[in-house]
Amino acid sequence: MNLALLSDADFVTPDRAVLTGRRLTHLHEVLSARTGDTIPVGRLNGNMGTGEVTTLDDTRAELRVALDIPPPAPLPLTVVLAMPRPKMFRRVLQTMASLGVKDLWLIHSYKVDKSFWQTPWLEEDALTDNLVLGLEQARDTVMPSVRIRRRFKPFVEDELPGLLEERPGLVAHPGTDTPCPRNLTHPATLCIGPEGGFIPYEVDKLTAAGCHPVHLGDRILRVETAVPVLISRLYDAAEPA
Amino acid sequence: MNLALLSDADFVTPDRAVLTGRRLTHLHEVLSARTGDTIPVGRLNGNMGTGEVTTLDDTRAELRVALDIPPPAPLPLTVVLAMPRPKMFRRVLQTMASLGVKDLWLIHSYKVDKSFWQTPWLEEDALTDNLVLGLEQARDTVMPSVRIRRRFKPFVEDELPGLLEERPGLVAHPGTDTPCPRNLTHPATLCIGPEGGFIPYEVDKLTAAGCHPVHLGDRILRVETAVPVLISRLYDAAEPA
Repeated sequence: MNLALLSDADFVTPDRAVLTGRRLTHLHEVLSARTGDTIPVGRLNGNMGTGEVTTLDDTRAELRVALDIPPPAPLPLTVVLAMPRPKMFRRVLQTMASLGVKDLWLIHSYKVDKSFWQTPWLEEDALTDNLVLGLEQARDTVMPSVRIRRRFKPFVEDELPGLLEERPGLVAHPGTDTPCPRNLTHPATLCIGPEGGFIPYEVDKLTAAGCHPVHLGDRILRVETAVPVLISRLYDAAEPA
Repeated sequence: MNLALLSDADFVTPDRAVLTGRRLTHLHEVLSARTGDTIPVGRLNGNMGTGEVTTLDDTRAELRVALDIPPPAPLPLTVVLAMPRPKMFRRVLQTMASLGVKDLWLIHSYKVDKSFWQTPWLEEDALTDNLVLGLEQARDTVMPSVRIRRRFKPFVEDELPGLLEERPGLVAHPGTDTPCPRNLTHPATLCIGPEGGFIPYEVDKLTAAGCHPVHLGDRILRVETAVPVLISRLYDAAEPA
């Protein structure tokens, strides 16, 4: 936690917020904070700044908050991701949030085991918790939107073409000839398949919707590695487009 | 496992190998292999190709092996990594192996908790097992070298300058002005700090040894995310230098 992310409910007055739970534990155990210390804070979907610890005990901390720094720029990237296996899903969510992805669509695909959709990590509170961890890691405040589409064909036929109008599409596909482009200066939509990849029917449907298949070279990467590799290649994190 | 990696001990004749243990379980449970099937195989530090399953039961599989494809190009990159916390270390090892890092140095740093050095994942067999998992994931055969240096200063003063003669050095450091370069066409050494970063004394020592501090932007990334982001930025996985 490189930033304590405060929600509206944490504020008791416009410049005072109360921390409890996980963030209070972090204050005690990791930061060894004391009254008078200043910690980095941010307001959900708002500015970032500092919080001065004015009172602190085992049940709550009160902070005097000054927020004057805008959050880092969002990535101009929509990610369409075949639902990963649960143990990987949590980390991928946190990674996406850390990297500045603000628009994530989780879709079904032939090689997504139906059981993956049963994971409790898909419940709204769990999604939020993991996205908050990613934002707090990276020092960002802007909550990503996550949409769930459990049927491949209706999503690709009815919704994807609309997304691609604003953000042209790429599909990461090891079987193709075109290397993934670098350093885009425009927004994009990136489709990433499951372990084992999209099947040819799915690549055809994605292509028909307007996506261009691209590859990352000979190496087959796990989804949790492919995501940061692809994003780092598409956009310059140091100077976001 | 996108490739079954065979060691010398697995070969019973020059073109016949026997699988047992984890790889046999994978053959049965994931691939549902049968006699006559062909699976992708590689020889440790050698070529890749195919293995035809000639006999198969619950205790062993025998393969007729043909190896005529060279492994993917190695990354021309030496990574100097402050020892990560154990639960992250295993994944980082696998990721490094998947991405083609062949030269890894694990070093101490002020913010590395001494307990991290006690992890059983540092034992030679455990290191090898995790590197093999990364190679099998990516379809590579060339085992990375891992060297362990539990004292920062002697490494940086006595060994690092020699490494930098062949491979100029960068140190990932959020506090600096220079963005991390892209698409290098020469070999390099990349130093990556622990959670919380290298302390100023350490950055000074690394700089004195010849490393250039570079940053990745405003976002603070976990080591397991920073590694693929940095590597993808430095080298084009599709067409390695």
